[in-house]
Amino acid sequence: MTATWTLHPDRLLPAEPSTRAVARRLYAAVKDLPIISPHGHVPPEWIAQDIPFHDPTSLLITPDHYVCRLMHASGVDLADLGVNQGLLDEAAFRRAWRIFCESWPLYRGTPSRFWMETELVEIFGVTQRPSAATADAIYDQIAGCLARPEFRPRALMDSFDIALIATTDDPCDDLRHHEALRNEGYHRRVLPTFRPDRYLEPGRAEFPQLMGDLAAASGIDTGDYRGFIAALENRRAYFKAHGAVSTDHSHADVITLTLEEPEAARIYAAALAGTASEDEATALRRHLLVEMARMSVEDGLVMTLHPAVFRNHDPGALAAYGPDTGHDIPLAVEFTRGLQPLLARYGNADGFHLVLFTLDETVFSREIAPLAGYYRSVYAGVPWWFIDAPEAMRRFRGAVTETAGFTRTSGFIDDTRAFCSIPARHDMSRRVDCGVLAQLVVEHRLDEDEALDTAVALVAHNPRQVFKL
Amino acid sequence: MTATWTLHPDRLLPAEPSTRAVARRLYAAVKDLPIISPHGHVPPEWIAQDIPFHDPTSLLITPDHYVCRLMHASGVDLADLGVNQGLLDEAAFRRAWRIFCESWPLYRGTPSRFWMETELVEIFGVTQRPSAATADAIYDQIAGCLARPEFRPRALMDSFDIALIATTDDPCDDLRHHEALRNEGYHRRVLPTFRPDRYLEPGRAEFPQLMGDLAAASGIDTGDYRGFIAALENRRAYFKAHGAVSTDHSHADVITLTLEEPEAARIYAAALAGTASEDEATALRRHLLVEMARMSVEDGLVMTLHPAVFRNHDPGALAAYGPDTGHDIPLAVEFTRGLQPLLARYGNADGFHLVLFTLDETVFSREIAPLAGYYRSVYAGVPWWFIDAPEAMRRFRGAVTETAGFTRTSGFIDDTRAFCSIPARHDMSRRVDCGVLAQLVVEHRLDEDEALDTAVALVAHNPRQVFKL
Amino acid sequence: MTATWTLHPDRLLPAEPSTRAVARRLYAAVKDLPIISPHGHVPPEWIAQDIPFHDPTSLLITPDHYVCRLMHASGVDLADLGVNQGLLDEAAFRRAWRIFCESWPLYRGTPSRFWMETELVEIFGVTQRPSAATADAIYDQIAGCLARPEFRPRALMDSFDIALIATTDDPCDDLRHHEALRNEGYHRRVLPTFRPDRYLEPGRAEFPQLMGDLAAASGIDTGDYRGFIAALENRRAYFKAHGAVSTDHSHADVITLTLEEPEAARIYAAALAGTASEDEATALRRHLLVEMARMSVEDGLVMTLHPAVFRNHDPGALAAYGPDTGHDIPLAVEFTRGLQPLLARYGNADGFHLVLFTLDETVFSREIAPLAGYYRSVYAGVPWWFIDAPEAMRRFRGAVTETAGFTRTSGFIDDTRAFCSIPARHDMSRRVDCGVLAQLVVEHRLDEDEALDTAVALVAHNPRQVFKL
Repeated sequence: MTATWTLHPDRLLPAEPSTRAVARRLYAAVKDLPIISPHGHVPPEWIAQDIPFHDPTSLLITPDHYVCRLMHASGVDLADLGVNQGLLDEAAFRRAWRIFCESWPLYRGTPSRFWMETELVEIFGVTQRPSAATADAIYDQIAGCLARPEFRPRALMDSFDIALIATTDDPCDDLRHHEALRNEGYHRRVLPTFRPDRYLEPGRAEFPQLMGDLAAASGIDTGDYRGFIAALENRRAYFKAHGAVSTDHSHADVITLTLEEPEAARIYAAALAGTASEDEATALRRHLLVEMARMSVEDGLVMTLHPAVFRNHDPGALAAYGPDTGHDIPLAVEFTRGLQPLLARYGNADGFHLVLFTLDETVFSREIAPLAGYYRSVYAGVPWWFIDAPEAMRRFRGAVTETAGFTRTSGFIDDTRAFCSIPARHDMSRRVDCGVLAQLVVEHRLDEDEALDTAVALVAHNPRQVFKL
Repeated sequence: MTATWTLHPDRLLPAEPSTRAVARRLYAAVKDLPIISPHGHVPPEWIAQDIPFHDPTSLLITPDHYVCRLMHASGVDLADLGVNQGLLDEAAFRRAWRIFCESWPLYRGTPSRFWMETELVEIFGVTQRPSAATADAIYDQIAGCLARPEFRPRALMDSFDIALIATTDDPCDDLRHHEALRNEGYHRRVLPTFRPDRYLEPGRAEFPQLMGDLAAASGIDTGDYRGFIAALENRRAYFKAHGAVSTDHSHADVITLTLEEPEAARIYAAALAGTASEDEATALRRHLLVEMARMSVEDGLVMTLHPAVFRNHDPGALAAYGPDTGHDIPLAVEFTRGLQPLLARYGNADGFHLVLFTLDETVFSREIAPLAGYYRSVYAGVPWWFIDAPEAMRRFRGAVTETAGFTRTSGFIDDTRAFCSIPARHDMSRRVDCGVLAQLVVEHRLDEDEALDTAVALVAHNPRQVFKL
Repeated sequence: MTATWTLHPDRLLPAEPSTRAVARRLYAAVKDLPIISPHGHVPPEWIAQDIPFHDPTSLLITPDHYVCRLMHASGVDLADLGVNQGLLDEAAFRRAWRIFCESWPLYRGTPSRFWMETELVEIFGVTQRPSAATADAIYDQIAGCLARPEFRPRALMDSFDIALIATTDDPCDDLRHHEALRNEGYHRRVLPTFRPDRYLEPGRAEFPQLMGDLAAASGIDTGDYRGFIAALENRRAYFKAHGAVSTDHSHADVITLTLEEPEAARIYAAALAGTASEDEATALRRHLLVEMARMSVEDGLVMTLHPAVFRNHDPGALAAYGPDTGHDIPLAVEFTRGLQPLLARYGNADGFHLVLFTLDETVFSREIAPLAGYYRSVYAGVPWWFIDAPEAMRRFRGAVTETAGFTRTSGFIDDTRAFCSIPARHDMSRRVDCGVLAQLVVEHRLDEDEALDTAVALVAHNPRQVFKL
């Protein structure tokens, strides 16, 4: 390694010299554009209250399940990384940080490596590659930064140039932080997102309790199906009034169907009574996804789908550490048949936007691109979560573009809680897309002025248009 | 963009200089070989009657669902593009053409972009990139061409150097146009293809009606199963006598099974009476696919499968515009289990050829290549429809070649009704395959003389051998 | 072709000059490392008895179903290649060899081409490309080699530098050859592998017979379920005592479940009596896979899964030529749901190793990499069988690395009976991985010292660590 750790300006650009030359010119045009982040998981109170970050470990390691999971696989206990341990003491934070630095070789070839090195070098000015020998010095360097005002969330919002960021919120959330930001006239947009999964799954044991919460939040009696629907509409309106532009949905599948209202009402009542069968509960869930589309047609909120994950695959870890700790595992998914009932009703409805994300790459060319290339509502969501990485991004463009072009894709979504990784994530996407476009240019499939226009559109236009920003 | 719109001679060839140099040499050897088109959808009367093309829009836009679907997704009404509107007036043709030219950026990175630019520049001599500003001039340029004799179908057959073209025809078609061409001794081969899908789906409401048509066409009573089978054999023989070399099949799946004749006869009778259950009708369809294989073994017609598409996904568009208007959406498919009963009987039968196409790329390496690399009858069909494009073609060769080599692949199939796009489609395939072969050469996996031999074989030998031309 | 047939030193390395330069440096560091082969099918008696190879055809053609299948597809009878024909006479061996040499163009772009040319040139000193014209001379050249002592198995073990090789063995095998090798103090490791598939499939007609064999081999009464389990444990202990480090499993799926012991015992008794239903037999098989994991946790044997192949797809060939003659065809597979019951119990158990192989590439990024990137026991097996080839290896690294890195992968497995192809197979893997790593370096995603460390680890460390060598 070099004596001083630096990042090469051409990272992720294709190596072939003529391609790289084009890619550099495209990237130069987009690298400094403001960040638009229409879907993610940053807690809004961080920004609303401008809470200083506490320490390197709880900022960069503990909450990042991409980072923790590979260490777990290699034998590290999640507890030693602080997962679900409350606030550690200084020695434990340092120990966790050292474990991570010793584990640096695990991340070779992963996007976590790219994100983390970008954060360390570009945000915190680290000059040494992580290792056992450098762990303490890097910890001190970052801790020193975090003590300074220019590393508080709002200062970083400015230095990262995040023009807009969306959070993900429970339908019963009072959105007080969003309201506070709006009331004070904060100069960057921080939007809520309506994420109703649990309220749309009548098979959950806690469904009756959730219906009570929904009634309390909406002030509408959810004792019957009509009240339930009205309460959902009420909360969507509340979210919209607080700036929301989209709803997000993640169920085990995207199969849709429509029930007659009496049948939906009957199953709803059974679910409240705890007597709905699994099949009935599933049928109602699938019906409710169509209802969500109907509401989107009416209220204009963009509908995004992030389906087909086996949540909490490891029951031992769920018991010990809670959810979202690295053992959600993707499943195969099917859109063509599953979404047809929904699309037959609303696929070309005025103003309806439906963004399809997947962790199952097989549907990119087979299903998503053909749907997005025909239906007015459908957009191909860019790679998400496990496949939010250079090779997968290239596969996405390779699989989707030939059927749906570039205009029917969503623009980049960082989908992260790791606040400091946001610039690195958007930068990775910009670099990869510029490389893809450069390849089209050097193979004479696109003129360079067109590639330039497209590179800028993917960053500055597509997310605004798709998410109605 | 450059002042004059030109096409680079190295389009689609790999950018890396040593690879491009090899690819150029390979491409030089194949670029001018005659076009063999053993599967497509050009209406035979165009050639038989040498009907002049009417105008740029109805030639290049209205019937091309690749082109129309992306405009539809972006908000254009299919009616404004002339779909299902009968003959437009001149102003409407021009308006549709202008919409298309304004929509030119939609096609960036799609094969439609490549095909259309090749047609505009190489066939019609257009010198300006399509845009609102250039729409009228381009329209006039093409319209001017179409008025001239050298742009009538037979002149284009010659200038395109289409040595052979197959059409796709209903089993009850009298093939009068093919017969007329043969009778006059037309010097290029125009062949029919037997496409019996509807007649093999006893679950269709119109099945009894279709059986009546089949009886009328064949002169054989289709009142029972034996008559039905005899009538199918009769029509196949009729097609073969009119030059057909293949049959084509596209059902929702390729699951096969064999019924005992009494059971097949019983279900057939029930289907005629409208009393067959869905499961019975499906079982008979799957049995009939094996019957088609048996007949191919006996009469020598090549059997091609194009399965697993959800037809007419958008019922609103079906009602307004009819079928084949851009909303057929691919489905996952399975060959290994599904075709086993058929292949157990006929997989290695003398002279039987079975060509497997797919829109589900996952089966290329997993199922099609292993089947084509063992069974004498099976050939891997090249990418089709949505995946008939450079990146997908490269994925096809990458997925299939390592198991099945080059000799077990079908040769290029344009599968198009867009007559003027045929040379561009074959040219794309030739360029991409030369690039793939060049990569093998520069990685020292193939000697250049072998690559050259293979490049020529893929164009000149494989389609002739696979389709028995 | 060149006058003398030679192999380029840069075979399989990327063509782009800066990438090739890095790849060369990486490859130089690994090309001469000893071969570790922890899974394969070489008969142990070849080494134990140092049996001279008989002739070129029975060594290189007849037993290699990769080589035979493509000739079969092209019309060659397997009998003419010696398959299931007993010992041919000299003229027949020569005829078969000539057929192969004439068929050389079939293998363009396949790994068989690479392996065979490497064997011919590097082991046997062949200087002419195979063809009808050169067939006899090449045959004579190889036959001349085989008559010499330096071409006997043990001499080749030394010249190939195979430090360790594992065989695949029936649970009732007495492992006499492994024992003999150990007793004589042979200086290279030859290990058995416990492969119990047939004994874990209660639906097989021969299951009662197999239970009798198992009782005889173990000396334990297998008349009830407890005895059956004890007998399996006994044979695993026997294998372990004879050097085994792993067990291997290949069923139609990897669905797992756990039965209560009385239910397992009931089905077992029914299976012995021939009265178990297909569903019961399948349930017991799936339960037994979890039992195998339990035993691995207890005895430390590494568990490897090679699932989802339709065995003996062509019943005619099975009858004429027996199994393993080129018509096993891959199936789609599912791991996320299927393995969850097993992983919920043992996924993070101390010392448990579970290596997941697949012929269905769709699970690489969707399921295997996420599982291997979280569970301590799970490793991603490298491409196997049909996909054990350069393009597929690149797809594997492209699909797996971004989620699971390099450390969670198995190291190369040659899985072959073709003894002389072992060095070529490992060489291919090393070349391809060095190319993949070089691309990461020239795109500035990895420093070259890290790439070098990883290249060496993939060859020298990963197989030792994963297989506990």
